[in-house]
Amino acid sequence: MAERMNYIMGIIENLQKIRTGKPLIHHITNWVTIYDCANVVRATGGLPVMAHAPEEVEQMTSISSALVLNIGTLTVNLVKSMILAGKKANEKNIPVILDIVGAGATDLRTDSANEILNEVNISILKGNSSEIGTIAGVEAETRGVEAISVKGNPLEITKKLALEKNLTVVITGKEDIISNGKDIYICKNGHPMMGCFVGSGCMATSVIGTFAAVEKNYALASANALCLFGIAGELAAKSAKGPALYKTSLVDEIFNINESTIREMARLEKIG
Amino acid sequence: MAERMNYIMGIIENLQKIRTGKPLIHHITNWVTIYDCANVVRATGGLPVMAHAPEEVEQMTSISSALVLNIGTLTVNLVKSMILAGKKANEKNIPVILDIVGAGATDLRTDSANEILNEVNISILKGNSSEIGTIAGVEAETRGVEAISVKGNPLEITKKLALEKNLTVVITGKEDIISNGKDIYICKNGHPMMGCFVGSGCMATSVIGTFAAVEKNYALASANALCLFGIAGELAAKSAKGPALYKTSLVDEIFNINESTIREMARLEKIG
Amino acid sequence: MAERMNYIMGIIENLQKIRTGKPLIHHITNWVTIYDCANVVRATGGLPVMAHAPEEVEQMTSISSALVLNIGTLTVNLVKSMILAGKKANEKNIPVILDIVGAGATDLRTDSANEILNEVNISILKGNSSEIGTIAGVEAETRGVEAISVKGNPLEITKKLALEKNLTVVITGKEDIISNGKDIYICKNGHPMMGCFVGSGCMATSVIGTFAAVEKNYALASANALCLFGIAGELAAKSAKGPALYKTSLVDEIFNINESTIREMARLEKIG
Repeated sequence: MAERMNYIMGIIENLQKIRTGKPLIHHITNWVTIYDCANVVRATGGLPVMAHAPEEVEQMTSISSALVLNIGTLTVNLVKSMILAGKKANEKNIPVILDIVGAGATDLRTDSANEILNEVNISILKGNSSEIGTIAGVEAETRGVEAISVKGNPLEITKKLALEKNLTVVITGKEDIISNGKDIYICKNGHPMMGCFVGSGCMATSVIGTFAAVEKNYALASANALCLFGIAGELAAKSAKGPALYKTSLVDEIFNINESTIREMARLEKIG
Repeated sequence: MAERMNYIMGIIENLQKIRTGKPLIHHITNWVTIYDCANVVRATGGLPVMAHAPEEVEQMTSISSALVLNIGTLTVNLVKSMILAGKKANEKNIPVILDIVGAGATDLRTDSANEILNEVNISILKGNSSEIGTIAGVEAETRGVEAISVKGNPLEITKKLALEKNLTVVITGKEDIISNGKDIYICKNGHPMMGCFVGSGCMATSVIGTFAAVEKNYALASANALCLFGIAGELAAKSAKGPALYKTSLVDEIFNINESTIREMARLEKIG
Repeated sequence: MAERMNYIMGIIENLQKIRTGKPLIHHITNWVTIYDCANVVRATGGLPVMAHAPEEVEQMTSISSALVLNIGTLTVNLVKSMILAGKKANEKNIPVILDIVGAGATDLRTDSANEILNEVNISILKGNSSEIGTIAGVEAETRGVEAISVKGNPLEITKKLALEKNLTVVITGKEDIISNGKDIYICKNGHPMMGCFVGSGCMATSVIGTFAAVEKNYALASANALCLFGIAGELAAKSAKGPALYKTSLVDEIFNINESTIREMARLEKIG
């Protein structure tokens, strides 16, 4: 119980740091949810910047506090920009968050995810169960960008992959699982409506990146971010009856969220 | 009257199939409305995926139930990806929907539309009156992506072009006209507010693609989709007083629409 | 007082011209706010078109009434398309509006802004204080796309740069400053919420472009546009409590704004 209070105080303190320090979060991301990724960073309190030209990504990363990579509408050239930026981030000790959208659906996505993981020291690897399953080498089906099935226990897959790759792994879903190979967090916040509009996964990744900019324990940063995002998702469901207005409300709830709401609603557990 | 009931039962049954089967709808589309196209597919019940890299488009199309091509912000390379994906769709017998956004406004748009039509067997060709008029070879003016004028009777242009190209032609406007050269449908649902925000045309095409994934009579699939979309447009107008909130409501109405509303509001006629 | 009335009548008359004439506003812009730029032009009354392929930009510009260039997610090739379109606009005497998003943050952005300014006769150069400061050659810091600091008096920087480059310079911020080197306007409309979501700067530029399509005094066109945009921002704040719904309302307020509201709320001053 006291420990639970600790994680939750972490959310509040890190959110305060974000709102005060306005960290710059550099994204190389997809063209579908690029606006919502930027806007949710802004609503959380950070400053988003989207820049993908190979001529500028290293310089932009150098002045940033986190780098978010998202392969949702990847091209071969975009992956090259991601690797350039990622290497620079590594050099500068800036956290790199990788969302492997659609890994498993096509070879280009699976291979690009693996290529980025080989070339860049990723801090946080994030996907849904089948995307992470694909990278972990278990049997999995991804239909486009949607998890259909994965063989094996997601908790074990998460922990094992984290140890093997020496990073934090995040699987989002009904319950979010976060592990750095040692600690395991489960976040139970969230609402089914989050799966009814396009972009909640990408937005969650951007919020994770924003927290990683101020919290160097990346498993905790991810758990904090997903808890905040999930609480906002629950709050939004109270008023919005359709997915489009729901997304609008989700962003607004993040913007307006306060300490007592977080304290009351957070359902974050450290189970290992 | 009994026949009217048949078409309308078709909407309800096909919508049910979409919501149950969650067909994957692969888009190669424009950067302006890409989010809204994805989100309206999700609200209808399908799973959208946006992927344009030449290295993956064939594989992504292969696992999809429909392919939507939209030239709204085309480049020469993007058209190449469209043709690659389209040929694969033809091989796999997957319907291909082409929205010729801006045909007539520039040579690149007109020529690319014709090139895709020559290289790929398109199932459904969709545009506004001047875009379709341009492809039909009649005098027409497209200002950017807006129909200004077209010479001739849209009903005849639709039917003749459908026969000539052996596909379904859709002209959207105040009344939507759909023909496969034999059957002609007129959909009278819709609301003037649909022309007051950016993207209703593109979104309509994505809904058509979603219906074509479950209904092999493509003229009927298009008529079903436009009727559903138009009803949602009428419902949205009841609450939203400006175009931005109106778009949000339109998506939400599609998500929440039920059988009795469709039955009551559908204004779809088969006139030939 | 009589003079104030003149500027304000200008807003009303120019808005009327836009709503009646529906000028086509060609954008070569960024992938983050591309939808909102298009949609705010539509809400104002213009017709937006987004087209960036080098094969078509000149032809699209030729049929347009204004060209808006925005380097928010620039690439080297996109800048080439901007220059092609810009030269054609110059040839056809069509106003060119340049938003130098992120100038100062990376060399690519600063250099590209300068390159476009050298190659194209820009009608209106727009940025925040540190972006404009960077081009004016004063000490300035841009964090991503956010103004952090600028050395010197923004009023003087604006006027001096306008004279030097022979164009209209616009600095947006708490108060917007507009000068063509001779006249200086200050627009005091606006609301702090406009800084809480992503895209208000880009959208403001698109509204400026829409006014420049109908008002050949570009300083006045910019002042008109920013005043209208700021009034809508104040109105939106009355109902929307979070930034996402606020943006929706801002667009809707522009769509619904009427003469008496403009007359009552406009806070536009000509100070030089």
